Amino acid sequence: MEVAYQGEPGAFSEQAARAFFGSGVQLRPFAAFDDVFVFAARVPRSAAIVPIENSTSGSILENYDLLLKHNLRIIGEIKLRIHLHFMALPGSKLRSMTSVYSHPQALKQCDQFLRKFKLRPVPHYDTAGSAKIIKEQRLRDVGALASRRAAQVYSLRILKRNVETQHRNYTRFLILSRTTRVKALDVSSSKSKTSLVFSVRNVPGALFKAIGVFALREINLLKIESRPLIRKPWEYLFYLDVEGSTREKKLLGAIDHLKELCTSVRVLGSYPQGRTVEA
Amino acid sequence: MEVAYQGEPGAFSEQAARAFFGSGVQLRPFAAFDDVFVFAARVPRSAAIVPIENSTSGSILENYDLLLKHNLRIIGEIKLRIHLHFMALPGSKLRSMTSVYSHPQALKQCDQFLRKFKLRPVPHYDTAGSAKIIKEQRLRDVGALASRRAAQVYSLRILKRNVETQHRNYTRFLILSRTTRVKALDVSSSKSKTSLVFSVRNVPGALFKAIGVFALREINLLKIESRPLIRKPWEYLFYLDVEGSTREKKLLGAIDHLKELCTSVRVLGSYPQGRTVEA
Repeated sequence: MEVAYQGEPGAFSEQAARAFFGSGVQLRPFAAFDDVFVFAARVPRSAAIVPIENSTSGSILENYDLLLKHNLRIIGEIKLRIHLHFMALPGSKLRSMTSVYSHPQALKQCDQFLRKFKLRPVPHYDTAGSAKIIKEQRLRDVGALASRRAAQVYSLRILKRNVETQHRNYTRFLILSRTTRVKALDVSSSKSKTSLVFSVRNVPGALFKAIGVFALREINLLKIESRPLIRKPWEYLFYLDVEGSTREKKLLGAIDHLKELCTSVRVLGSYPQGRTVEA
Repeated sequence: MEVAYQGEPGAFSEQAARAFFGSGVQLRPFAAFDDVFVFAARVPRSAAIVPIENSTSGSILENYDLLLKHNLRIIGEIKLRIHLHFMALPGSKLRSMTSVYSHPQALKQCDQFLRKFKLRPVPHYDTAGSAKIIKEQRLRDVGALASRRAAQVYSLRILKRNVETQHRNYTRFLILSRTTRVKALDVSSSKSKTSLVFSVRNVPGALFKAIGVFALREINLLKIESRPLIRKPWEYLFYLDVEGSTREKKLLGAIDHLKELCTSVRVLGSYPQGRTVEA
């Protein structure tokens, strides 16, 4: 099976895919998220893995939009605890480094480390791509902030581990497919989760009634996020994660009830609650 | 009065500040959001302006965190419709340009324009900073994607207007201060808005009850977003915007009711609903 992800080999998405599927799948890197969705929607028995939210920078709305655009189901999730390492060509010494390449978000995440070692930050497209450029151009005195996997892929040496300032940084990834017959390496949780999108008119009490369909059935809410519809300012879109699966009568009843109250309802998928792995 | 913002002169935050306050205030640029908050918290009769959500990239959780860390009140808001322009040194011609500097998000936003004119994207820290570097280093054949204001500040010529692919891109800014006696240039809306943060235990129906305090009083919800508390995984934090002001008995009653149900409640401020301006 082929699994599409966005980024260069060594990207955090690739690490998440390895943790979810193991080594028995073929990973396919793409430049843009849209290409990732298109691949999984076209190729039978393929899957896609995309980041959907980060504990520091929030929801990745672009991928929520692509979920609505493409006809894929969420079949799983995995949470990656993000660690950033400072890496350079073998033989380099930390004290002789002058600048560091990485994604602006990663450079910001490691600001204390950069200040301490007087490293000039140089923004780059992504973390793995920074490691790649150092390898390809044989850059001396320049390091990259990237994942452990990027150091392996581009044969760089990690000069300093876990240089991020805020150590509790998690990214949640969704696994998407046309088919539900894709198996995860390890499903540690027997608990299910269901992701929904619905829209309600912007009137007092509309959301209260909508989430009431879950509360009245004692179904636990795991995530809620509202988003104004730019083209329809009188309507709101909600992203909701709830406990349970659409195989359960209780949740099916709640969804039918929700359809009575909302202008639109779409189930994005029911899947096992994912485990957290260290990047 | 002094107003702090993050970025270089010509940044979208500066434009939002000008639109909110007019020209009668002194604008103070800072490198980091935290510095912006610290300034407004320390200096009497000052204010800060920070982006809080974008229609494409979502909520800026870093600034939500800083709102909880610093003791400032939200005293206003303004929505900026973001336009990106392609600019270069005077005398330049669009057809002779080879590369373009900007923030990665802005480069991505203008991908169709870049492809059409075969421009090589070069990531930079921010949009206004890209315009600044072209001016300072007298870079030929290189353009920047930045705001109209950046073109003015750095005396660059706009070679092509509104080059963004997705034309409906809005950023909402909050105005923060220790004092509530700060006046906006123009408050077009007489409607008020109140922003709150509260946490509830992760049990079925907890959020339903919490937002019930507003629904039962026919108070309209404008925005809701949940965020798991990383250090307390059994608790959830909610950011909520509702219609109305804490000068109204009805909303005060709802907030008292909310305090009965939640583990913590904090009012971030009541302020007039902001207008939308073109960047």
